[in-house]
Amino acid sequence: MQTLQVELGERAYPIHIGSHLLARADLILPHLKRKQVAIVTNTTVAPLYLEQLSQTLQAAGVAVIPIILPDGEQYKNSDTLNLIYDALLQHRCERSTTLIALGGGVIGDLTGYAAATYLRGVPFIQIPTTLLSQVDSSVGGKTGINHPLGKNMIGAFYQPQLVLADIATLHTLPARELSAGLAEVIKYGLIRDLPFFEWLEAHMAELVALDEDALRYAIYRSCENKAEVVAKDERESGERALLNLGHTFGHAVENAMGYGVWLHGEAVAAGTMLAADLSRRMGWLSDADIARMRAIFVAAGLPVEAPALGVERYLDLMGLDKKVVDGKIRFVLQQGIGKSLVTSDYDKAALQATLALAA
Amino acid sequence: MQTLQVELGERAYPIHIGSHLLARADLILPHLKRKQVAIVTNTTVAPLYLEQLSQTLQAAGVAVIPIILPDGEQYKNSDTLNLIYDALLQHRCERSTTLIALGGGVIGDLTGYAAATYLRGVPFIQIPTTLLSQVDSSVGGKTGINHPLGKNMIGAFYQPQLVLADIATLHTLPARELSAGLAEVIKYGLIRDLPFFEWLEAHMAELVALDEDALRYAIYRSCENKAEVVAKDERESGERALLNLGHTFGHAVENAMGYGVWLHGEAVAAGTMLAADLSRRMGWLSDADIARMRAIFVAAGLPVEAPALGVERYLDLMGLDKKVVDGKIRFVLQQGIGKSLVTSDYDKAALQATLALAA
Repeated sequence: MQTLQVELGERAYPIHIGSHLLARADLILPHLKRKQVAIVTNTTVAPLYLEQLSQTLQAAGVAVIPIILPDGEQYKNSDTLNLIYDALLQHRCERSTTLIALGGGVIGDLTGYAAATYLRGVPFIQIPTTLLSQVDSSVGGKTGINHPLGKNMIGAFYQPQLVLADIATLHTLPARELSAGLAEVIKYGLIRDLPFFEWLEAHMAELVALDEDALRYAIYRSCENKAEVVAKDERESGERALLNLGHTFGHAVENAMGYGVWLHGEAVAAGTMLAADLSRRMGWLSDADIARMRAIFVAAGLPVEAPALGVERYLDLMGLDKKVVDGKIRFVLQQGIGKSLVTSDYDKAALQATLALAA
Repeated sequence: MQTLQVELGERAYPIHIGSHLLARADLILPHLKRKQVAIVTNTTVAPLYLEQLSQTLQAAGVAVIPIILPDGEQYKNSDTLNLIYDALLQHRCERSTTLIALGGGVIGDLTGYAAATYLRGVPFIQIPTTLLSQVDSSVGGKTGINHPLGKNMIGAFYQPQLVLADIATLHTLPARELSAGLAEVIKYGLIRDLPFFEWLEAHMAELVALDEDALRYAIYRSCENKAEVVAKDERESGERALLNLGHTFGHAVENAMGYGVWLHGEAVAAGTMLAADLSRRMGWLSDADIARMRAIFVAAGLPVEAPALGVERYLDLMGLDKKVVDGKIRFVLQQGIGKSLVTSDYDKAALQATLALAA
């Protein structure tokens, strides 16, 4: 097991990364205010891991309230959020009850947001069971739900007490979702860590084959990169925006196709290739760099072509994106591999040409 | 005009108290990130003050989006909250748009919570137009909505950029609501400020008659007391709980009678007299103190007898109160006038006897 400390002053917390952590009550108990937890999970994860985690906690004398939600991005909404509130109120849970998110990014975002807002804030613990949530959504305190008019429009910045990334849970993850998680892993290399990108080029086959040592290193290094960025910029006023490489294009894809049709990581991969094309047109990225990016995404089992939506539809979809500042769309673009910037200083014709590729 | 600075580190903000502040664009402009605001108000306040505030801002070049909600505590819920989100999204409001709450406590709580959660947090300004919201809910960052199973169960701690308490708006406030606000003013004297309580005994007639100097002083001194408590304990782990004097009993009354049947301040006044009776039974408060309390509440036009709900119903209603710790109800009790404590160390028989008074 490896441990990473996310430094956020009084909101600092540890991330433990290793195998079979669901059996480790000793890691969880020190973070509970009282011996009562509500475990929020979904109908896919519950049959796999809920009993194991519950038994671990109950054997340590902790009362467990299970809250099982329907599975899917389409349920990341206020109706599902209310199911959590209702269960907490029915059990008369107090401010000393800890919420545990057991599942992927949707469960983490919903549970974190419920924790941020129930009684104006109760403690919570993240136990991410997908690669994507282990390397991305469980680090940094973003929580929230979707709105019919846009993804993640309602939410809060709220930090967990603890994150347990159990690599063993990845053995039950569909291959397509593993690939989607690798999109975010690759992203860290692209935006700020060339040596990690090179390591990923050398070890992608091991990651896809679920080699535990490779996974632990990739997760640790990803969390380390994200934690460094988040510690500098908790509320997303500056550098943190770099983590959105490929996301402005990617959200447009997810939004247009309907949440959950393209997986988030798939949309990010294709979106990152669009951003790379725009970077190339600005003279900041070489054809050779683009070829390396394409190759690593393909090796990870990810799409590199965005769907044909039409230039106007893309622009319209991106107009609602919350990363817009004063009416001008800002993009995360690359200056070579391992270096990136947030800018609205790009050529509009170049953007049109990039979008035409996907049109 | 008097100004009070609420000290909360990087979340510090000023409260300006005076007459005709709705005309003062100069007080608002320095706090805007861009010249766009959404003014959230209700159908009662809009005809009185929305045009005046809008004109003040528009004359200074600020674009105004009005959001007019139905009036009443029964609308402090997720459906009404969604009306705010919908309007913000339809206008494509960004993180640089400032929300302005123009109204009483319900508008302040709803708007503050919308600001806390829209795009994970946008700036907001409080312009409270009732005495209660000027002395209580606009100071301290509590925001939120009610849930069918309990009041203020969903919410966030979120500080405004600025509070403008315009005394002129109190001239359109119904007398019953002015009295309800005075209940919280009196509370500050009771829990921690004997000289203020004595000042209130001497000046209650002026306050009820809307004397501006008396109101400005009472509002300033109330905000000062609350700001001192909040600055020491932003997230309600300790001293801040003293502000809930009368509230555990009061919430039970509000909850049982239906939100809005008893005004919040009325329920707090009657609840404070129940708490005083329990304090007396514990030997902490004299008959003479109780008589002074009764007299000042009556002078302020407030009820001093709680409704007859029955002992069991009171206990049941208080069991869901979020101030419960580990299953034991804690009360704010007094040790004389001007001194209070939070305790679960009271005699159960005394509590039964107190509740039997209202049964």
